[in-house]
Amino acid sequence: MKIAALAGGVGGARFLRGLRDALDADPDLADSELTIIANTGDDISLFGLRICPDVDTLLYTLGGGGDEEQGWGRADETHVVQGELAAYGVQPQWFGLGDKDFGTHIARTLWLRQGASASAVTARLAQRWGLPDKRITLLPMTDVPVETHVVVDRGEGPVAIHFQEWWVADRAATPAERFVVAGLDTAAPAPGVLDAIRGADLIVLPPSNPVVSIGIILGLPGIRDALRGSPARVVGVSPLIGGRPVRGHADACLSAIGVEARAMAVAGLYADFLDAWLVDPADAPGESTASGAPRRAGGPVVQASAGPLLMTDRARAAELARQTLDLGLTLT
Amino acid sequence: MKIAALAGGVGGARFLRGLRDALDADPDLADSELTIIANTGDDISLFGLRICPDVDTLLYTLGGGGDEEQGWGRADETHVVQGELAAYGVQPQWFGLGDKDFGTHIARTLWLRQGASASAVTARLAQRWGLPDKRITLLPMTDVPVETHVVVDRGEGPVAIHFQEWWVADRAATPAERFVVAGLDTAAPAPGVLDAIRGADLIVLPPSNPVVSIGIILGLPGIRDALRGSPARVVGVSPLIGGRPVRGHADACLSAIGVEARAMAVAGLYADFLDAWLVDPADAPGESTASGAPRRAGGPVVQASAGPLLMTDRARAAELARQTLDLGLTLT
Repeated sequence: MKIAALAGGVGGARFLRGLRDALDADPDLADSELTIIANTGDDISLFGLRICPDVDTLLYTLGGGGDEEQGWGRADETHVVQGELAAYGVQPQWFGLGDKDFGTHIARTLWLRQGASASAVTARLAQRWGLPDKRITLLPMTDVPVETHVVVDRGEGPVAIHFQEWWVADRAATPAERFVVAGLDTAAPAPGVLDAIRGADLIVLPPSNPVVSIGIILGLPGIRDALRGSPARVVGVSPLIGGRPVRGHADACLSAIGVEARAMAVAGLYADFLDAWLVDPADAPGESTASGAPRRAGGPVVQASAGPLLMTDRARAAELARQTLDLGLTLT
Repeated sequence: MKIAALAGGVGGARFLRGLRDALDADPDLADSELTIIANTGDDISLFGLRICPDVDTLLYTLGGGGDEEQGWGRADETHVVQGELAAYGVQPQWFGLGDKDFGTHIARTLWLRQGASASAVTARLAQRWGLPDKRITLLPMTDVPVETHVVVDRGEGPVAIHFQEWWVADRAATPAERFVVAGLDTAAPAPGVLDAIRGADLIVLPPSNPVVSIGIILGLPGIRDALRGSPARVVGVSPLIGGRPVRGHADACLSAIGVEARAMAVAGLYADFLDAWLVDPADAPGESTASGAPRRAGGPVVQASAGPLLMTDRARAAELARQTLDLGLTLT
């Protein structure tokens, strides 16, 4: 089976590792190919190095080198380089990078400067993490550098700051007025991205941020049309539990685009291509249906997960992924 | 007093730290200003980062952050970043960089890319190491990127390789046919370099490599003329003891330019501007005089150091520097 997934960082990576585990545990599905289309709107250039937080989180988590507790960055990190940069007065210091992580960014920046595309660089990095051996192909959504900016007003009129500054330094405390991704509407999807969607047997939306992760991928020309046109079932997992994000600031992002922080309101963002939607038991009863022009008459099939939607550990992530798989496979 | 020095890496840095110690210990000389003109021909771009080995060795040694045993690099280093680059298959791996050292190279490369000159970057780095407070000004010899290449023949005809590849990876085992520094003959000395030479009360040549360190600085347009024309006494310290370099491969470098590995033969390279030459007691008797058109009738004053010329520790380096100072100050 060919599975395509659109994904952001931590939640996406944990869910997709669970999905690979669930596939590997099933003799009928173990040879399935998983193609992951990663958000690159979070990318940022710091210290002269190109950093791709979502791609890196996917690499590290799927490759077995990630910090399990934190969800991003490398396990057993040290912070010597960043300390030196601070001693030299290099700014900003709000984005904490470990020494192992610096290795990735130095390699990526070197290869990009040598003329390699973001997809070629990602493929080289993925080799080291053994992703091809795991039947995982990791694609950046586009080879064109795009960066999500956030318009905020700190009392002196609206200014646009980099998404990471808002997310990490500001912890999304200043209300976002809107998101601006310069060039997104003319950026071409990276090689293989549209084919992965069109050729998939199943398409999965992990519980990634619907606005600044999956929403950015959907903003690329051709992606939404490919999803609408794909014969594959599209199954999504709610990133909200009882109206709150498990981690991160998805509620603050939804607020900026005028969407309520409810599981079914998120489904409404995907209504035109979504076939099924897995929600937490807390969100199943009493939730209104997804708004928007639905792909299916009556809207997507909504199923409550067996137990809380929370990915408390790797085994639980695999259980949720298995249920998501089953939901997709049994749809008629 | 204003002192100017031309310097390479390890030997130059150790001697000049000794010189600063000797000045600080003398109430009459403690307020002396020391301007160091550093060789940049050893500079190399690796992993997309600009590395200036001699400048960095001077910064670390004079700033108190260097590895005393090794003579270059930072004290108490770790090698996490380099290990990651190796895991990603990034080449070359023969140039070992520690994590603290990477901090320097990332900061330098960032500032260079932002448009700062090599001298401006060096001044920013020197701030962190407190050099201005120590009355030390560190200048790269030029703001123009120049790189020393070595022509070698490994059996397939002559090829030019980067000086660092020959020095570090090859350990100068393959005989050098000649040295080529593209662009050196048209590179302008960095701001302040010629003024430091012209305005000095004393000019010092530490026991740096006469070919690939001091020799490269002398190859810059205007440097040699400034030295010849300066009213300041020029005092040098032999980099050879009993015909052998204390460390490094100065003998292999001298061989490539057809000069014997003898203390007085090295003095001959500086004959047109050298006033005095400090040698090891082993080299004083029986050595022939310096060849070349001498600045002084009869050639430079040659003095044997009190005890071996070896800088066994910081105190000994200060003693040798004190003797060098005295030699310069008492010349008539």
